[in-house]
Parts: sequence; structure tokens; C-alpha cells
Amino acid sequence: MAKTNPGRFFEDYTLGETIQHAVPRTVSGGERALYHALYPARHALYSSDEFARASGLPASPIDDLAAFHLIFGKTVPDISLNALANLGYAEGRWRLPVYPGDTLSASSTVIGLKQNSNGKSGVVYVRTKGINQRDEVVIDYVRWVMVRKGDLDAPAPETVIPDLAPALSAKDLTIPEGLDFTSYDFDLAGERHRWGDYAVGEQIDHVDGVTVEEAEHMIATRLWQNTAKVHFDVGSRPDGRRLIYGGHVISMARTLSFNGLANAQMVVGLNAGAHANPCYSGDTIKAWSEVIDKAETSAPGVGALRLRLVATKGGEPFTLKGEDGKYLPHVMLDLDYWALIPL
Amino acid sequence: MAKTNPGRFFEDYTLGETIQHAVPRTVSGGERALYHALYPARHALYSSDEFARASGLPASPIDDLAAFHLIFGKTVPDISLNALANLGYAEGRWRLPVYPGDTLSASSTVIGLKQNSNGKSGVVYVRTKGINQRDEVVIDYVRWVMVRKGDLDAPAPETVIPDLAPALSAKDLTIPEGLDFTSYDFDLAGERHRWGDYAVGEQIDHVDGVTVEEAEHMIATRLWQNTAKVHFDVGSRPDGRRLIYGGHVISMARTLSFNGLANAQMVVGLNAGAHANPCYSGDTIKAWSEVIDKAETSAPGVGALRLRLVATKGGEPFTLKGEDGKYLPHVMLDLDYWALIPL
Amino acid sequence: MAKTNPGRFFEDYTLGETIQHAVPRTVSGGERALYHALYPARHALYSSDEFARASGLPASPIDDLAAFHLIFGKTVPDISLNALANLGYAEGRWRLPVYPGDTLSASSTVIGLKQNSNGKSGVVYVRTKGINQRDEVVIDYVRWVMVRKGDLDAPAPETVIPDLAPALSAKDLTIPEGLDFTSYDFDLAGERHRWGDYAVGEQIDHVDGVTVEEAEHMIATRLWQNTAKVHFDVGSRPDGRRLIYGGHVISMARTLSFNGLANAQMVVGLNAGAHANPCYSGDTIKAWSEVIDKAETSAPGVGALRLRLVATKGGEPFTLKGEDGKYLPHVMLDLDYWALIPL
Repeated sequence: MAKTNPGRFFEDYTLGETIQHAVPRTVSGGERALYHALYPARHALYSSDEFARASGLPASPIDDLAAFHLIFGKTVPDISLNALANLGYAEGRWRLPVYPGDTLSASSTVIGLKQNSNGKSGVVYVRTKGINQRDEVVIDYVRWVMVRKGDLDAPAPETVIPDLAPALSAKDLTIPEGLDFTSYDFDLAGERHRWGDYAVGEQIDHVDGVTVEEAEHMIATRLWQNTAKVHFDVGSRPDGRRLIYGGHVISMARTLSFNGLANAQMVVGLNAGAHANPCYSGDTIKAWSEVIDKAETSAPGVGALRLRLVATKGGEPFTLKGEDGKYLPHVMLDLDYWALIPL
Repeated sequence: MAKTNPGRFFEDYTLGETIQHAVPRTVSGGERALYHALYPARHALYSSDEFARASGLPASPIDDLAAFHLIFGKTVPDISLNALANLGYAEGRWRLPVYPGDTLSASSTVIGLKQNSNGKSGVVYVRTKGINQRDEVVIDYVRWVMVRKGDLDAPAPETVIPDLAPALSAKDLTIPEGLDFTSYDFDLAGERHRWGDYAVGEQIDHVDGVTVEEAEHMIATRLWQNTAKVHFDVGSRPDGRRLIYGGHVISMARTLSFNGLANAQMVVGLNAGAHANPCYSGDTIKAWSEVIDKAETSAPGVGALRLRLVATKGGEPFTLKGEDGKYLPHVMLDLDYWALIPL
Repeated sequence: MAKTNPGRFFEDYTLGETIQHAVPRTVSGGERALYHALYPARHALYSSDEFARASGLPASPIDDLAAFHLIFGKTVPDISLNALANLGYAEGRWRLPVYPGDTLSASSTVIGLKQNSNGKSGVVYVRTKGINQRDEVVIDYVRWVMVRKGDLDAPAPETVIPDLAPALSAKDLTIPEGLDFTSYDFDLAGERHRWGDYAVGEQIDHVDGVTVEEAEHMIATRLWQNTAKVHFDVGSRPDGRRLIYGGHVISMARTLSFNGLANAQMVVGLNAGAHANPCYSGDTIKAWSEVIDKAETSAPGVGALRLRLVATKGGEPFTLKGEDGKYLPHVMLDLDYWALIPL
């Protein structure tokens, strides 16, 4: 019998089951340095222990999206090895900052199943939970993927589509314990714009661009122990091109958004996300944002912005969908998230 | 007089001499993170402090092959700068795990010399020893290389060929103190196959592939402070191609072998190894393994597998040599090693 | 109003003003490991805690040029985003070693201004200071750049050109407290040449070369949080090529100079520097050095060498300028610095 992991097919998922994902990971300053080398990451809270302490945290955490990728990567062998598409995200919450020395592991519970009408595939909804060495939840989120059937004769499961919030409300966000932006140093952070300076509906062109390379996206994707063949092996797709991990685009866009949103320090909520078009080596990633919502929080000096983050390759900023309602070909990512920013 | 290192020629080696290699190195979480970013390294014992502690170790060590490359890299300026070929390895033993904070240095003793019949080169056999800051041996191994003569008129030394074991026997392996796999968590490790599930003669196709890039192999090779020109300078070879460090292929193949050998956690013995054909940027490395031998060990719950690990670029899995007994052109590496796995 | 940083134009600088640069950074073993992976860095004092302790330091510091790039990178958004050219360096001093755990930040004071006769640009002189978490100066240096005017009608400032030393004298150098090379281990350091073995006027061809790749220079440049578009975005220059950060060339040349200057351990003074010609991916960087001056120091066993370090792409070693006094096209860098070496 083959000893290698063939991945799960649609009929292998059972509603309600919880899958323990493999390979826990202890993070260190090494992962942090690599994140800063692979992306133009400059948010001060994640760069300086001193800045983090002045904001009420014990030290500078690992970037929130790095923690997300670490958890996400663990799910790949069990959830998306035979996935045809990564369809969406919802109800993502960062519950606790991750610090060097923490050990992360992950599990996913199947919360929805729906076979497609063609009988060849189906949609699997999972709620994934990342925990640290003290069994505290650091991140949880819902993701749904379209997965091939291995046995076309396997019976269709009962259709269950989970009831997901279109977006988290500000009161659902977890504010890290002790966070306090009342003595926030805007000079050290890099920009002067505070919560009150952003208006709902405002759009920001982040201006900078990065032309991506094969070596970089593979280094990044491996760092998260994401093993999906399509990112690494030119022989795994008919066109001979390596598909860049969608999370690489997310992190590139988020870090590019520093220029205009330098004070949107902490990512605390993931409302929705679509990988609209693929990214390949040689593409130049740019980003623009739109303020969707604003809220105050219970923490001193801390406000929240709900932001749309769009990653593009070419095309005009602020263009998103065509008249047919479909994403334009130059749009790679449409992400909807909550970030914390000084009031 | 030139101040740069011209490297040693065949006539510069004396039987019995010990060469202290330069540039000791303190390792940290940085080297570990880079190893995980450069290779699809996922063995849980080397990824999670918690998993390592549950296995009886004080923390998660640096990957065994990373420690090997660190020691090997130090030997390059003294042993292989003028080498025409890296001919073989034998009697390699990992004696102690390497942890972040350890400082490694290396020395080599010349244990054999044989001038070639053409009078232009010869074979040098060295036993290399890597030690930590407490002068404890962490790794030792024998390597032999073909080295050019600098002065063709230099007299041939007496031929001495060391008596090397064709393979270590299981009882020669050093089992890390405290190692205990009796409470091993197969879910966290990623596969369910234990020692008893592998049969001598069994072959495993590891399925996954990685297309390698110039930037990656140079970053990896430098990380081990390996300075051989051929890996870095397009002008150093007539074909204008950079030759990829053989150790890059070893680590890529070993980490690809996770898929099917996820529980073969610790590399403890290197019996033999051949770099059968060169690897260049753009090649897609795949790997297959064969179980050569099996043994129990004195440690609780710990078995040993002797494995052949073959790295290929193209070609069918499980093909190795042609009718002429020579390695097929798609075979890059044929490695023979011992690994520890839960019983 | 645009929230992104447009950078400063010539008319935005005022003599005497001090600009606090953004994004403090805590360094760890991760930055060190990356520096060693991106460059052939092998100086033993920066590789081994044990070697550093035997030299009187508490631990192995971050490479001096890594610390320099970290400080330099912070200045880019405020000083050189609209720069037409990086014209020179002077009076650079390393005042304190930087250790893992230190947090660095930077500020610059405008010490000179001179509008160009064409009225379209001007030269800005700044003295940049890098400090650690205890407000101790770790590095300071003067740099001058040619910056575009944003408003051509803005009045020219009074011309002030600072009085800069053509070179630091040996007595101006800061020797790290406790540094002692009297028990220096030349075997571990990699070469036997000490201070007395180098003669003023001596030239050294460092022999080795590295062909540079896009992924590597972008990873390095981001590591220092240097955000200048020209290094990352193929669309930012008319020729569609990414210009390699000049500091990448400095670090590559300095680390290549290990071969012949392995004992020139610590960089303590930067006298002058010119980025003579641009560097692009695919170029093969080589280096040669010339001993400009020698001096003893107050520390036991510690001498100082003043060195010219030249980075080239092609061309003969030891060629620098043409008959017209201009740098030859294959010369990329001409750097003048002081290093500490065992007597």
C-alpha cells in the first residue's frame, strides 16, 4: 500500500469530524526575520520590542499574517491537496498574538458539505483553529474549498451550508490584552494618519509595487510548511508554470499597504477574501485599499478600521469588477479585514 | 605573496595530519527557520520544541542535515577547493543533537592517500569531526575526494587506503540520550506508518517535486559557509552554469521523503553516498527511497531503518543504474543512511 | 489628501533640522542567519559567540555592515525617495557593536544644502545617527544625495557645505570596549596574515565572484526595510530593470574580501564611498582591496588597516579610473574604510 499522502477527496469528509493537522511549529526570531525579508513588512509593532512594549504588549509579536500562514499551511495536506479552488474565507479572528518561542498547531472541523451538481466535486467548509503550547486559541477562521471526488460513485452527503456572518462586527473582535495606543509614537510608526483621519469610502492607492520571483514565493510558501505541489513543481500543471500561493499575494499586498496605512497595525479580523486571479513569477504586485467601516474599541486609544485590500497586476487602481460582476483580469485578491489603529 | 587561499593540492596532504578548519559558527533559530524555508522540511521533532520534549529531548534540535552541511562547509576551503570530484562518504555518525545556541567547529584528519595512475591527481581520504562548544563530537564522517596535483613533479605518497565499513551496523549508531518514542503522536507527526509497517526491500515514491532556482541554492550553500566558486560564479566553469552544491540535493531529497517517511525522524548514520550526476537551476528534484535494513535499538520505542535515498531529475522512479552498472543520467544522488523511527 | 508618502523634495529640507526616521527594529539571530545566507560572510567574530568571547566581547555581534544597512534603510523614506543620486559618505563611525536583542532606530540632521545651478535639484547633506534601546549611538555617518526639487519656483536656500574630513584618522576610531586580540586564534579565523603582514600600497585580488540574482538582492534590501521602488518594481525605471541597492554591492564586496583579509574583523570607520556604476541581476561581483594606511590602537593586540575596497563586474583587478579620471565602466563601488585586525 502506498505510504504517501494522496490527500482527501470530497467523499472522505464527514460533517462534524475534527481533523488534527500535522507538524507543530515553534517560531523564533528566524521566522520573523524571514517575513521581513520576503515582504516589505514595516509595521512598527511587529518590528520593535520597544514599540510593542510602549503599546502595552510584552514584546513584538510575529506578524499576524505570518501566524495565519503558519496555521493555514498545516491544513493543506488534509484540506486542499486535491482542491480545485479555494473559494472563500469568513469569520477569521486573531485571538492572541504569537511570540517567538510559541509552538503552534492546528485542527479543522468540517462544518459544511455540498456536492456539486456535476457529481464530480463538492464544497467542503471547515473551521480551522490554531492553538499555542498552552492550548489557547491564537487564530480561528472558516474556509471553504472545492474538492474533487475520488470515487464518482460515492453517495452525495446531505447538503449542509453553514450560516456564516458576511462580516464580523467590531464588537466580535478580540483586542489583545493590555493594548494601549494612548502614548503611540507616530514618528516612529512612519505616518501621522490616525483613526479619525480615515473616512468610510475613502480609497488609498499604495503606490509601491514588487515584481515577484520564483525563489521568493517558494521560500515563503515552504516557510509555512505549505506543501501543495503546484507552487513548487513546474511539472504539476499543464502550462508548466508554478502557481504562487495565494497567501503570498495577501502578505505582499498587506505589507505594501503600509504606505498609506502604516498605523493600521494589527490585523484582528478576516471578514472575507477572494483569490480572483492567479499570480505568477514576473507579475508586479500593487495594492489599493478602501475603508469599509470604522469603530471604536474598548481598549484605550485603539480604534478599528474595516478595510478592503485589493492586490493587482497592472490595471488602474480602484478598478475591481467588470460590468458582468466578475473580477477584472488584473485583480488577484479582494480581501476584507479589520485592523487596529490609534484613535 | 598572494594572501588569498589557493586551496591545497594533492601533494599538500600528509597521512595522519589533522587540519583545523576555520570559522566556528553559533547557530540560532535563524538557521533553523532558513532551513525550513529553503527545503520542505517537516519532520516534527525538528519543527516543534513540544514534540521534541515529548520525545525525551530538551528542545527541538537543528535538522541533522543542516548540522552536517555546517560541518561540511567548513571543510571546503581546506579539502575540496581544488577537488575534481567528491567520490564518497562512509562511517558518518550523528553523535549529539545540535541546539540553537551551540557553536560548531570542525577538523579533519587525513586517513588515506592514493595518487592516480595518470600522475595528475590523487584521492584524499579524511575523517572529519564536528564539535560543539563543550568539545563534544556532534558529527563525524569519512569523505574522499579526488584532488589535482599542483606540482606534477611532486613524488607520489605511499598509497594508504583506509579500511572503511561498507555500512554502519545498527549497534554502531548513537541514539540521543533520553530519546523515547513510546508516547509518540502520529497525528502530529503527519503519518501513521511505524517501524513495523516498513519491510526490507520496500520502495517508496515520494511523489512531490521541487524545481530549483539559482537564488535558493546559493542562499543555502552560503548559509553553510561553503565557498566553492562553482556554486556562485557563472564564470568559474566553461559552460557558464552554476553547479548546485551536492548537499542541496541531499537536503531536498531527504525533506521530500517526508511524504512516505514522515516518522523517520532522526538521521543518525551515513553509510555511503554518491553524487551521480550534477544538478542545475531549473531541474526538478524528486526522490524515492528503498528500505535496505531494519533494526531495533536500545531506546524505548525507537527502531532504526536503513534507507537508500535517491534524488532524480526526470526518469522513472526506482530506476537507478543502466546495464553497464553506471548511474542513469537522471539520477543525481544515491544515499545510504540510517534513521530512527517509532517502533 | 493623499495618505502615501511622496518623499521629500529639495526645498523640503531646512538646515539644522533633525528628522526622526520611522520603524525601529529589534534584531535577532534571524537577521544574522539571513546576512550569512545572502552574503559569503565568514568573519569569525561575527559567526561564533565563542570566538567573540575569546576576543573580549560579550557575544558575537551582528555584522557591522548589517547594522549599517539597518540604519541606512530607515533613512530612505525621508532622505532618498526622490534622490537622483547617492553622492557620497564621510565620517562614518561604528560606535558600539549591535547584539541580537538590540532595538535600533535612526535620525538624521541636515548639515548642508546646495541648490544646483540648473535650479532643478540640489544636494542635501545629512548626519545620520543610529541608536539602540538605551539611547546609545551605535553608528553615525554623513551622507549626501542629489534630490529633485518638487517646486521649481521654491527659492534656493543659502548654500552651506559642511566641512568634512577626507578620512577619519586612526585616533578618531572607536574601539569596542574590552576588545583584545592577544589570544586570537588564526586557525579558527581562517588566515595567518596579521597587521604586520600588510604593507601600505599592497593590493589584494579577492579572486572569488558571485553572480547576483533578483530574488537575493530584493530579500536583502527588504531585510533592511529599504523601500526604494527602483529595487523592486520593474515598472519604476524606463529600462524595466531593477537597480540593485548599492549596499548589496558593499556587503557582497566586503564579504568576498574575506579571502585575503579574513582577519580584518571589525569595520569601525567609513571614510568615503562612491557607487561608481549600477549593478543589475546577472552581474558577477568580484572585489579587490588596497591598503591605504595602517595604525596601532590603544586596545591590546589590535591594529587598524585603512582599506580601499573596490567591487567590479568584469575588467581587470586593480583598474579603477580611466585617463579622464572617471571610474571605468566595470567598477561599481569604491569604498574607503577602517578595519581592526590582530597585530
